[in-house]
Amino acid sequence: MALDSNATKPHDRLAQALADEMAAVNALIRDRMASEHAPRIPEVTAHLVEAGGKRLRPMLTLAAARLLGGAGDRAVKLAATVEFIHTATLLHDDVVDESTRRRGRPTANLLWDNKSSVLVGDYLFARSFQLMTECNSLAVMAVLANASAVIAEGEVLQLTAAQNLGTTEAVYLQVIRGKTAALFAAACEVGAMVAGGSAAQVAAMRAYGDALGIAFQMADDLLDYGGTSAIGKNIGDDFRERKLTLPVIRAVAAADATERAFWERVIEKGDQREGDLDEALRLMRRHGTLEATRAEANAWAETARAALAEMPKHPVQAMLADLAAYVVARLT
Amino acid sequence: MALDSNATKPHDRLAQALADEMAAVNALIRDRMASEHAPRIPEVTAHLVEAGGKRLRPMLTLAAARLLGGAGDRAVKLAATVEFIHTATLLHDDVVDESTRRRGRPTANLLWDNKSSVLVGDYLFARSFQLMTECNSLAVMAVLANASAVIAEGEVLQLTAAQNLGTTEAVYLQVIRGKTAALFAAACEVGAMVAGGSAAQVAAMRAYGDALGIAFQMADDLLDYGGTSAIGKNIGDDFRERKLTLPVIRAVAAADATERAFWERVIEKGDQREGDLDEALRLMRRHGTLEATRAEANAWAETARAALAEMPKHPVQAMLADLAAYVVARLT
Repeated sequence: MALDSNATKPHDRLAQALADEMAAVNALIRDRMASEHAPRIPEVTAHLVEAGGKRLRPMLTLAAARLLGGAGDRAVKLAATVEFIHTATLLHDDVVDESTRRRGRPTANLLWDNKSSVLVGDYLFARSFQLMTECNSLAVMAVLANASAVIAEGEVLQLTAAQNLGTTEAVYLQVIRGKTAALFAAACEVGAMVAGGSAAQVAAMRAYGDALGIAFQMADDLLDYGGTSAIGKNIGDDFRERKLTLPVIRAVAAADATERAFWERVIEKGDQREGDLDEALRLMRRHGTLEATRAEANAWAETARAALAEMPKHPVQAMLADLAAYVVARLT
Repeated sequence: MALDSNATKPHDRLAQALADEMAAVNALIRDRMASEHAPRIPEVTAHLVEAGGKRLRPMLTLAAARLLGGAGDRAVKLAATVEFIHTATLLHDDVVDESTRRRGRPTANLLWDNKSSVLVGDYLFARSFQLMTECNSLAVMAVLANASAVIAEGEVLQLTAAQNLGTTEAVYLQVIRGKTAALFAAACEVGAMVAGGSAAQVAAMRAYGDALGIAFQMADDLLDYGGTSAIGKNIGDDFRERKLTLPVIRAVAAADATERAFWERVIEKGDQREGDLDEALRLMRRHGTLEATRAEANAWAETARAALAEMPKHPVQAMLADLAAYVVARLT
């Protein structure tokens, strides 16, 4: 290991350790996003894929496989599959959220139109299923098909929960499992499966991905009220979109009558005025909900690290443990 | 056979012959469109599914299986899979086309919103893949995954071909193969596969579905200029949406300079005035393109009938042959 390895971010160290396979994944993505007949498809896809992103999900698949001795071409195919599913959901999310920026660029729905984003997303989703059939494992396909259903279900749930002050923590957990943890968990699980992991190892990698995804999304939701723009979000986006994330759900639960009237006005009625974001932050601090969310995220990160105990000792195992610590370390 | 069977429409006779299995398909669809966590999903799906529709695609799967001795539960699952894929594409199509009516009802994008239609479509697409994994056949899954990719590719192609007078007949064929024939072909093919058909029989059923779908879509495109509202379309919808369908493509190819200027104005520039639809119809009649489209559709219907020669003699075989004749008989 290089002397500076501890100074490097865990996902960068994973990217180094898995560099050859990640290059193969990227080549496969470029190859399969082509369309002989409809040039609009690779245009839209390339815009999003080549903007980068951390490629965290395909790396999880490769890392899980590597930990168990590797799975060669099949792990590469599944890693590309996972990234295609992720890209398809991003295209559709940006339509649903009417987003204008993603990964530091204008979104596809802005550059082309919503129609292209919907249909190219469908194409990538179909391509992901083609790719996974090539892995010749019905068990792997069932995991990824289930994850796809949970993702869509979580998105619909988020849609109907938005602006609803009755949203519970249980519903919030369901939503973030859908929007983030389901694909993290499936990415880890299928990597372990194709590498021939035992049932306990496959379950452990799934548990790791699930907890990592929950910690990651909770941290993201907290950062939306927390103060850094490093992840490309503006502070208060969720507030303006009237999303019920954990810091707000807890503040609403602890609200007195005056505070409740405030939340009803800004979240339910959407009547937001200057200074309302500051007031929301004051209420969240008053009830300690930002700190409580951070503690929850830390607990999930710890669950993720603990799940790795089931896996063989390996440099990649340590990197995955560091990754779990890192997603919440962003919060300090 | 009942005395009046010749007077009944072929798809009604198929529905009678396959009534028990179709009931099982409908029960399975109702069961699988449920979502424990997101009630919006069954609401949106039920709105579309219970509006009826002819259930032509699942019937093709069941009919192909029946012709070859039946495939029980697996054929029922695949028939439901095919209908889920179809329903998902309808939800997304209505968003893309900004449609307001479907099957005689307001569309889901109008009753709820585009967001719900996009996400519930994704959910149904994922559910279709879950259902097909239960059939335990990677070959069947590959056929349906490929069909899904061709459908999305065809939709994107249609999007970029719209308003483009340079659209060729080859591109048109690609578009209608995507939007209609790909799923008809896959529905027939997987039915034959799970019933244990020979390679020649599977290929014949695929060829039947492909040609039936092309004939069906050409007839639909012709009816859009032709004069009946029986299929729930208004005359001239495609004209107003500036779609390049076969009657227009041929009229543009045969246009003199004045006529070309007309097409450029109404289709490319979208500058449509009162009387333009009548003028378009006059030009299409002048160059015989409506008649030529009808002849093309008839030829594809004949191709479909001919493909059935490979299949065992069976009452269902005769119904499928009649169905091919019927989709173009609507034109007389």
